[in-house]
Amino acid sequence: MFNDRFLKACRREEVDYTPVWLMRQAGRYMPEYMEIRNKSDFLTMCKTPEIACEVTLQPVNRLGVDAAILFADILLPLDGMGINLAFAKNEGPVISNPVRTAKDVENIRVIDAEEATPYVMEAIKLLRKELEGRVPLIGFSGAPFTIASYIIEGGGSKEYKNCKTMMFRAPEVWHSLMEKISEVLLRYLKAQIKAGAQAVQMFDSWVGALAPVDYATYVLPYSKYVLDGLKDEGVPVIHFANNASSMLELVAEAGGDVIGLDWRINLDVAWKRIGYDRAVQGNLDPFTLFGTPKVIEEKVKRILAMAENRPGHIFNLGHGINKETPVENVIALVEAVHKYSRR
Amino acid sequence: MFNDRFLKACRREEVDYTPVWLMRQAGRYMPEYMEIRNKSDFLTMCKTPEIACEVTLQPVNRLGVDAAILFADILLPLDGMGINLAFAKNEGPVISNPVRTAKDVENIRVIDAEEATPYVMEAIKLLRKELEGRVPLIGFSGAPFTIASYIIEGGGSKEYKNCKTMMFRAPEVWHSLMEKISEVLLRYLKAQIKAGAQAVQMFDSWVGALAPVDYATYVLPYSKYVLDGLKDEGVPVIHFANNASSMLELVAEAGGDVIGLDWRINLDVAWKRIGYDRAVQGNLDPFTLFGTPKVIEEKVKRILAMAENRPGHIFNLGHGINKETPVENVIALVEAVHKYSRR
Repeated sequence: MFNDRFLKACRREEVDYTPVWLMRQAGRYMPEYMEIRNKSDFLTMCKTPEIACEVTLQPVNRLGVDAAILFADILLPLDGMGINLAFAKNEGPVISNPVRTAKDVENIRVIDAEEATPYVMEAIKLLRKELEGRVPLIGFSGAPFTIASYIIEGGGSKEYKNCKTMMFRAPEVWHSLMEKISEVLLRYLKAQIKAGAQAVQMFDSWVGALAPVDYATYVLPYSKYVLDGLKDEGVPVIHFANNASSMLELVAEAGGDVIGLDWRINLDVAWKRIGYDRAVQGNLDPFTLFGTPKVIEEKVKRILAMAENRPGHIFNLGHGINKETPVENVIALVEAVHKYSRR
Repeated sequence: MFNDRFLKACRREEVDYTPVWLMRQAGRYMPEYMEIRNKSDFLTMCKTPEIACEVTLQPVNRLGVDAAILFADILLPLDGMGINLAFAKNEGPVISNPVRTAKDVENIRVIDAEEATPYVMEAIKLLRKELEGRVPLIGFSGAPFTIASYIIEGGGSKEYKNCKTMMFRAPEVWHSLMEKISEVLLRYLKAQIKAGAQAVQMFDSWVGALAPVDYATYVLPYSKYVLDGLKDEGVPVIHFANNASSMLELVAEAGGDVIGLDWRINLDVAWKRIGYDRAVQGNLDPFTLFGTPKVIEEKVKRILAMAENRPGHIFNLGHGINKETPVENVIALVEAVHKYSRR
């Protein structure tokens, strides 16, 4: 491996500068991505290993980030579960058979990832070859709550009314659904690691909709099941729970070698609460990248100062890059992290 | 005043049971509200004192809450500022002339509330008469950031891209806009108090989109300007910043006799961080009201237990009532708060 700073930081080892990668670094803000995107629809891109491989490499080549993250979608495992997923134009994911009842949950299939999503594993294998050890490759999945939220609501949601109604009226249905989802996700991440992913991240993008007590009761055991199940796989695991500042202790309890932070909390406060026996990842507001170069530089320095060169900080945004972000600002960000974190 | 528990709790005085009112308690979940709503559009309801008065009284009569809150909208002051506001069907507020430049900010008028929104003051006067001291009447406004977000984005937003772009590229434009907005809001709330509001709440509904450092730089001074300006008005002021769990200390620093809490944080943890020299209001997840009566009761008890009968707790939801909420569950909630908090 030519650049193993990211993996070292995950293991809280000393590095010569802070590694950085960016959530959704392969994306629409990049002209070379749009060139491909204009020719094929999103799901086709995910399901064609050569394309997934190509767009995964784009930010590595263009930005100089310290890790590659597989181009994929957290909802890819749904197909194999018997959930009909489509991406409507400008509307995001739409599920035609949302899960609402015990019978719906019964119908969900728990099958192996190699069978359900062989193209993901092929893309990983191809990527490892193409990357030639330049930077490590991160695989990923959604977390049980986030996946459940799509499956129950039938797509994206603002208020998670159907999820919460199920929790608060039919908890046994909720728990049986979460059991199935977490088993699928554990197998999915294990398969990615087997295929060659050198780290994995579990995204709990929407769990911030919950009160801490409900996270503890309805979510934590299932996130923990997945994260515990990965402990002996030999790769670092990042656990990112978005908008969960008020329950970081519970998020850390669920597990993860690295805890991902959104931008809503000061990194020093967050790390202290999580404990220094974990690495942390984050946490610049993605919309900082719409600011002037001076603002970007100042905010990078501020986060680095809060991390105090403590081993175990991976620089990242607090959420995915916005599609309208000027690409030159993203490059400036990566350069600033490297420049100002040099030990 | 027959029932002054709410005002006593705002001042952290002993009460015989915990007072409760609910954000958006006058709203579409109530059949008697819908009867009126079906006959007139939303802005007409706000601008007709008799209608505003009638729907304000509905939850007082139906639910037995311990305070009335004026039926109005946080965006009513925009008209007088020269911002063209409309409510598009099923789309929420739409502003045809969003503010993006220094010139746009210059054009904003700062005029007195009695001139800009006389109907609000009339509704308050009428309500005080109709309420006959049964329960106190709360007035309200948006907070500077939340109002700015609508004015800049041109309506509701998910990511506040234009707001943040202004902060991070044209801070002088941002600051001059916030100065004008906070002056308008201070005058608006003072006018409501003069008209008879016995407490006021400032809603910072969308400020949770910001990193703490940006809140401190771009928002706090303006929220503080409004809240400081109300100190000698003789009525309690509630400051509610939604999704701001990670910066409650800053929210408290901005001011408010009562700090409103959303449902994302445990009330005991939040109160400790804020300090016991303030009252707190909250903080049940509004979607609890889609649960069984048993779940509602348990969750009410849990929040009351976290408040420990400490003087200065006002029970509320952590956000507005959803329009599909079963009204019988809302009644059950109010009863449960009264029953289980009796000293």
